[in-house]
Amino acid sequence: MTLQTARHHAALALDLARKAASLGEVPVGAIVVHKGKVIGRGHNQPRALHDPTAHAEIMAIREACAALGSDRLTGCELWVTLEPCAMCAGAIAHARIARLHYAAGDPKGGAVEHGPRLFHQPTVLHKPEVYAGVGEADAAALLKAFFAERR
Amino acid sequence: MTLQTARHHAALALDLARKAASLGEVPVGAIVVHKGKVIGRGHNQPRALHDPTAHAEIMAIREACAALGSDRLTGCELWVTLEPCAMCAGAIAHARIARLHYAAGDPKGGAVEHGPRLFHQPTVLHKPEVYAGVGEADAAALLKAFFAERR
Repeated sequence: MTLQTARHHAALALDLARKAASLGEVPVGAIVVHKGKVIGRGHNQPRALHDPTAHAEIMAIREACAALGSDRLTGCELWVTLEPCAMCAGAIAHARIARLHYAAGDPKGGAVEHGPRLFHQPTVLHKPEVYAGVGEADAAALLKAFFAERR
Repeated sequence: MTLQTARHHAALALDLARKAASLGEVPVGAIVVHKGKVIGRGHNQPRALHDPTAHAEIMAIREACAALGSDRLTGCELWVTLEPCAMCAGAIAHARIARLHYAAGDPKGGAVEHGPRLFHQPTVLHKPEVYAGVGEADAAALLKAFFAERR
């Protein structure tokens, strides 16, 4: 994968995070990529859907699984603007995502490099490759602006 | 809550676990109870739905949230036949479930009393009261029989 492709995928996830913000939801966006093609898209929408599980990653994973007709996303990549929480990291493991790319770290709610560090737990059933940082500045700025507006 | 009520709720969750088994899915069942009334039901069905997030707890939480028209289940109880995994424990925290009752412990995949012990993590955003063991023998026997048949 070239840096150009990485930036393109990070930008697609960021567009979805902006969509969440425009709808009054915490701005996080995610895509699932299979063989270079986007097969799942998600933005955070727990409030609109009355569904606490409607995080960007879960929405993208569910759409991608429907597209492939499988409950596994073997070989797929997930791009998300924020470090996944425990719920989403668990879903990523269940889906057998091959590579996880996240933009900004989340010391408060993240469960990949913070908190329970789920993929480092001996009981984890699948551990994706993890890459962090592409698109970090834009994703973090969007979240910061969103919460600043609401304080 | 009387022991009779506890056993009744555990039995309802077990019925849903049996339903999962009859459909060839890992036999786990869950209900959400609000003010004594069952408002959400779920059985494990990731294979049938092509959705790795379709665990019993997630299905029950989503149905209960739809019933209440909210992404929070404040004051609700969740009854499940097996110790929740990290994904489901995370969803329980997001949903602000007040009390979690699970029947059988899961040393391999559980994330409440095993593995990451999610509700003991300093970064967890909500910690339900946790009760384990009501209905344990039946729930564990059902799982054991299911996996024995498939070996």
